[in-house]
Amino acid sequence: MTIESAENNRVKILHQALVNDSDPAQLRKIRNLLNSVTNQEVARFIEASPPIQRSLIWQLLDPEREGDVFIRLSEDVQETISTKLSKAELLHLLEDMDVDDSADLLNQLPERITDEVLNNMSEERRLRIEQVIDYPAETAGGIMDTNVVTIREDLTVEIVLRYLRMFDDLPDNTSNVFVVDRHGNYQGRVLIRKLITAAAQAPITEVMQPTTDYIEVHTPANTVVQQFQDNDWVSMAVVSHGKLVGRITVDDIVDIMAEEQNRELMQMVGLGVEEDTFASFQKSIGKRSLWLGINLLTAFIAISVIDQFQDIIEKVIAIAVILPLIASMGGIAGSQTMTIVIRGIALQHINSSNTAWLLKREMYLGMSSALLWSSFAGFLIGYWFDDYKLTQIVMIAMTVNLLAGAITGTLLPIFLKKIKIDPAVASGVILTTVTDVVGFLSFLVLATVYYG
Amino acid sequence: MTIESAENNRVKILHQALVNDSDPAQLRKIRNLLNSVTNQEVARFIEASPPIQRSLIWQLLDPEREGDVFIRLSEDVQETISTKLSKAELLHLLEDMDVDDSADLLNQLPERITDEVLNNMSEERRLRIEQVIDYPAETAGGIMDTNVVTIREDLTVEIVLRYLRMFDDLPDNTSNVFVVDRHGNYQGRVLIRKLITAAAQAPITEVMQPTTDYIEVHTPANTVVQQFQDNDWVSMAVVSHGKLVGRITVDDIVDIMAEEQNRELMQMVGLGVEEDTFASFQKSIGKRSLWLGINLLTAFIAISVIDQFQDIIEKVIAIAVILPLIASMGGIAGSQTMTIVIRGIALQHINSSNTAWLLKREMYLGMSSALLWSSFAGFLIGYWFDDYKLTQIVMIAMTVNLLAGAITGTLLPIFLKKIKIDPAVASGVILTTVTDVVGFLSFLVLATVYYG
Repeated sequence: MTIESAENNRVKILHQALVNDSDPAQLRKIRNLLNSVTNQEVARFIEASPPIQRSLIWQLLDPEREGDVFIRLSEDVQETISTKLSKAELLHLLEDMDVDDSADLLNQLPERITDEVLNNMSEERRLRIEQVIDYPAETAGGIMDTNVVTIREDLTVEIVLRYLRMFDDLPDNTSNVFVVDRHGNYQGRVLIRKLITAAAQAPITEVMQPTTDYIEVHTPANTVVQQFQDNDWVSMAVVSHGKLVGRITVDDIVDIMAEEQNRELMQMVGLGVEEDTFASFQKSIGKRSLWLGINLLTAFIAISVIDQFQDIIEKVIAIAVILPLIASMGGIAGSQTMTIVIRGIALQHINSSNTAWLLKREMYLGMSSALLWSSFAGFLIGYWFDDYKLTQIVMIAMTVNLLAGAITGTLLPIFLKKIKIDPAVASGVILTTVTDVVGFLSFLVLATVYYG
Repeated sequence: MTIESAENNRVKILHQALVNDSDPAQLRKIRNLLNSVTNQEVARFIEASPPIQRSLIWQLLDPEREGDVFIRLSEDVQETISTKLSKAELLHLLEDMDVDDSADLLNQLPERITDEVLNNMSEERRLRIEQVIDYPAETAGGIMDTNVVTIREDLTVEIVLRYLRMFDDLPDNTSNVFVVDRHGNYQGRVLIRKLITAAAQAPITEVMQPTTDYIEVHTPANTVVQQFQDNDWVSMAVVSHGKLVGRITVDDIVDIMAEEQNRELMQMVGLGVEEDTFASFQKSIGKRSLWLGINLLTAFIAISVIDQFQDIIEKVIAIAVILPLIASMGGIAGSQTMTIVIRGIALQHINSSNTAWLLKREMYLGMSSALLWSSFAGFLIGYWFDDYKLTQIVMIAMTVNLLAGAITGTLLPIFLKKIKIDPAVASGVILTTVTDVVGFLSFLVLATVYYG
């Protein structure tokens, strides 16, 4: 049994205990079960529970562990739980968390509560949080923590090591100590592992990494992720106006990447990036219904095309049967193209100089598939309805629509990106509308020509 | 200008230089441009180039940098380039790469070439690669490198530090040294930052982390990713039969996560996980066309339903107009549900004890949306065709199909997962077939009842 399934199994047992009963003996049993699993498992257990059970589990949890479990929850679930806490509980929770996580959580709460909680904190911690809280969450400033170890550049390796030995423990993921001048200006960083292998008498300037390695505080979060990815950093300095203001560590990058997983996919069907799997009905209905409404409108556009051709459908009823086929093939081909292009944009592979090549390839792919599948479909339909005029109509209309899918799938996301609309959000709806309309229209116009 | 757009801009300039001309003066200019950018930028430039230009860029690249650029390319592109290299070039390239990356690359090449290249390597390196190459790429063994620093547990902090000072440099991302006994059995690990703050005379056993922290060599890659995510590791020991065999570092985890980005999305439209944006026509056509073929077959299933109802369509031609509307709404609602469920499965939130709750919520959501949008659509269509029988038919059929979408979207991925089929690959096609068939069928049966 892999670790994954073992854990999943324990979560399942917990759930069954919770569902079956809630008499005191049962609750005691659940509390014991909760105590026997790791914080991460409790967090996953809460995430995997419907809203009502979540509060119950939270109540049964050892208060000592609340902070450690809380930071492992997704933002959506954190918000749900924190709105139900008393101010004292909230304060207790925030004291346990990293500065950057505290700031994120406070940012989600109503301003009134945020102010009150901040005022009840220790002076030192409040100041630290306030340094971070003003930066937008989606920037380097919003991700960073202020837990940095700094040294001056006029020291030797030996003196720095002696200084570091005075710490009880260095902050998690400390792979660098940062070098600053007396005004707090960032001068560079020294890798801890360099400190260990360097000669004791070597001046810090000799073992320092180039000053050019740092993250500007306003850098967007996705660029920071890219920088970590490109440079294999474990931790890096965050700098504002030349001054060191914090650091970002790779564990935060991993968390961001995990949250971003399937971002495009979620947005393409009108869902939020970090949608809670077990969100309550009330929380889900608004966004979900809006999306259906938008799609209903675009479907009306598509069928209003068909409406114009009632006469020809009445004449050749097979046309009504075949119509959905033509539209769907264009949509499928278009969404393949679009998915590749959206990913290419995200990976920064696509720019104005290579779009033409991409479009050409997609059109060739569309043409080749059309040659293959439109003849197959065309002859099958010709045989089916015993009418080989239909073969020609199907072949031409399907080819036209596969090309429409290829062109729209390539150019639409690039265009949306250019006018600063997230391609993942809008491309799908527009693409389907285009391939539906082109599919219906080309097929029905051809039918009119052939039979009209 | 952000770093991102600055870089993108340079890539664009390079591309334009390459497209415009290829006379010697131009090529010299490109070579200079290439020399002025980082390895990561060159890699991105290659990724963003059509196949023919890729070879040209590779030719123009300083041979010294080939290894560093090569490891930054995606697997697909690495394979394309490596098949065109001479054995000497390949050997040179492999010498520059990390052991785990070398093994990955060698795994992609034909066995004949692999053997020949391995035999031409230095003994030490060959042995190291052979340790790794036999593990499947998608397991801990396939991701690990063998670049570990080990110590014995009967030493003091001071002696270990003195031992480490003898290294010129510790391997990248060394956050731990691993403790083994004389037989190579894994005993635990010591954080480098603990070594720095610990008392010089402290025995290693006192600063060691618990022995339970390690990765079993056969653990699937996605579980390893989850473990790093849950535990905020920077590097971790890989153990086989109790013996330390290698380590995995967080930079490899970040790379895997980046590759996995949009995995579901790519698979849902029948594409490979790490599809090359600028893959050649020949490389793309097979998989893409197969997908269209599968969808064509399912579309035939759907339209064969319509075919059974030619009489009623002939009688009330409006039915042909409205048909696609009913089918599409069920598909849209179903794909929202399905996306949430697929993500929930990936996050291990869904198990047999909470499926019922999820299904109930999705059905409520479907019912509520049906109430809202089917009445809207129904009355609009009634007004449009001046026939309020249609209103009733649309309302009932749309409600039925929204529920079909909710039920299929919830249960299908869970079922596929249970029978060990990746939900992301097959769910979409099956869902659309179900909602098309249910949509067409319910609408046409109702029409027959009302008008027949």
